[in-house]
Amino acid sequence: MSGEDKSLLERVEFPTIPKDAAKKIAHLQEEFLRVEVEQLRKSVPLLTPLFKKRNEIINSPEVQGDFWIRVFSTAPAEIDEYILPTDAAILGAALKNLTVERFEVDDKGNGEPRSLRFTFDFQTGEENPFFENTQIVKEFYWRKDVTKTTSGKRSVWEGLVSQPVRINWKKDMDVTKGLLDAACDLYEAEQKGGDRKKLPQWEALVKKIAEAEDEADAEDDDDDEDENPVSPAGVSFFAFFGYRGRDVSAEKSRESVKEEDERWAKISNGEKVDGDDDDDEDEDDELVDDLEDAEIFPDGEELAIAIAEDLWTDAMRYYVQSFDIGDDLSELDVEELDAMDEDEDEEEGDSQPRKKART
Amino acid sequence: MSGEDKSLLERVEFPTIPKDAAKKIAHLQEEFLRVEVEQLRKSVPLLTPLFKKRNEIINSPEVQGDFWIRVFSTAPAEIDEYILPTDAAILGAALKNLTVERFEVDDKGNGEPRSLRFTFDFQTGEENPFFENTQIVKEFYWRKDVTKTTSGKRSVWEGLVSQPVRINWKKDMDVTKGLLDAACDLYEAEQKGGDRKKLPQWEALVKKIAEAEDEADAEDDDDDEDENPVSPAGVSFFAFFGYRGRDVSAEKSRESVKEEDERWAKISNGEKVDGDDDDDEDEDDELVDDLEDAEIFPDGEELAIAIAEDLWTDAMRYYVQSFDIGDDLSELDVEELDAMDEDEDEEEGDSQPRKKART
Repeated sequence: MSGEDKSLLERVEFPTIPKDAAKKIAHLQEEFLRVEVEQLRKSVPLLTPLFKKRNEIINSPEVQGDFWIRVFSTAPAEIDEYILPTDAAILGAALKNLTVERFEVDDKGNGEPRSLRFTFDFQTGEENPFFENTQIVKEFYWRKDVTKTTSGKRSVWEGLVSQPVRINWKKDMDVTKGLLDAACDLYEAEQKGGDRKKLPQWEALVKKIAEAEDEADAEDDDDDEDENPVSPAGVSFFAFFGYRGRDVSAEKSRESVKEEDERWAKISNGEKVDGDDDDDEDEDDELVDDLEDAEIFPDGEELAIAIAEDLWTDAMRYYVQSFDIGDDLSELDVEELDAMDEDEDEEEGDSQPRKKART
Repeated sequence: MSGEDKSLLERVEFPTIPKDAAKKIAHLQEEFLRVEVEQLRKSVPLLTPLFKKRNEIINSPEVQGDFWIRVFSTAPAEIDEYILPTDAAILGAALKNLTVERFEVDDKGNGEPRSLRFTFDFQTGEENPFFENTQIVKEFYWRKDVTKTTSGKRSVWEGLVSQPVRINWKKDMDVTKGLLDAACDLYEAEQKGGDRKKLPQWEALVKKIAEAEDEADAEDDDDDEDENPVSPAGVSFFAFFGYRGRDVSAEKSRESVKEEDERWAKISNGEKVDGDDDDDEDEDDELVDDLEDAEIFPDGEELAIAIAEDLWTDAMRYYVQSFDIGDDLSELDVEELDAMDEDEDEEEGDSQPRKKART
């Protein structure tokens, strides 16, 4: 434990990754990814009946309607950080049920398993003072975009894309402060054709986003310590429904998948393919993202994946855990809670769900 | 964003979990677990050829022999926290290769997939100034233990058990300070039969563990801030080879698995089984753990699982990432590194591998 011992980090040097190794590793990572996606695909029909059974339990009288509130209240930081206190108030009062489906996979286990559908069921009428919608459905499609850049190199992007979904806010209740409406307005105007960047709705949305960012920056400056959990961009969780991602059509994606599959078949066969010996394959940042400036929830893909893989999958564990937190809290006083907070700050990198003891 | 909004945590009350719901949830969690284990089992024969291919790349001349050092240097906190600076020095200088196998699964995908075998290959002769072993193999068996407690309730434990593995340290090089030897001495003495707690080796080991704990406590007091990554118990990573877990024989485990499978079949059929309506099923803490006081590495199971599921599985990603860290480091100065450290402390709960910028 002498201070003179070198850490592992100091023992490695940092040239660039050896070129021959990089190519072999990239190919093998593709092989791993394909096995992983295939496993996810096969898991869908196995898990669907269990999630249905879970839904019956969640909505049985014993559970007293607070299943998802308890789950969200125990959510890990990577999800919790997107839920502002006002969002929590709305979810706590109005959320009735949540369903996540890998909806592009059929009963036989065929289809893209990374596409996701989120169905949020809410209270109606006077029991929901916030908005008129009794159900909000947000679909994310896994799409691929292979293009040649101007320098002739291949550029590959893949990820989740979606359409903005409107929420019919009751008077003065829009916690996105018009952001979500502006995103929906633009999307609807685009459907009539033409260059989106010339639409008045484009200008309106870009301006609204800039205003929201300025406001978030100002709040950040107010409060150095940042004690309260605040969404990274200071934007409401409900702006999640406005996420779009890249502008990749279903048709373009199908072509790209086909092209990549054929390319991959050749590589697996040991055949030579174009661009496989490029010094470095162009990554997605060379691709133009037309929609970047009109994105009201830039972390939409990350949050969608976190909710699907973590919150949804482990919901029963979080539910059970929410009772333990109560036990812990009732035995603690405020000083102890503060000490717990500090301890948690030290345990960085811990992937376990955290006990929340903040207000 | 008014401060008067209640957080989700404040919106839930904390009675106990509704009894009927608890039973249904427990049954459903068992169903999920069985599907999950089955999926893991089926994945083994699919992934084994890819891991073999990876091993060829790792040991090809292009990779220059530093693959695993780079991977360990980029390891997430849940693994990194167990590697002291002296451990890092040894691994950095002497580790040649690492293999993780789910060795109880056969080619057809049958067998227990949670059992793990770790094979560490090391430099020999003068290139390894630390110990004589050129290979250290540590096997963990997934075992189950169902017993009736004195009150007649069922008590179920399952987890990883193992045997201590001796390291033949060169003179003055034992970084476990005799702990691993003492654990091996006890284990070997036990093989001759008799009550282990009456053996002189038991007393010797328990005394050594108490000494190590006192020392760790003293160091902790010295250093309130705990800036350096220190293993939770202040014990060397190499004490991992001494982990034992509970004293559950293969035969006892087979019986318990059979008993539980039969019980589960009845529950699935809707038949009534003993103990299923107990107010609360006794958890493992009612089971006596004979070996608890003789455990030199209490987190052995957690670390084994973290290495197998994270470090081993994602090794290529960590390797590639280790080059990026170099890029980052070369552009940063010390003040920026400190600032980065603070930022990281704030990003708690982040499950992404962290960049390490500490010494």
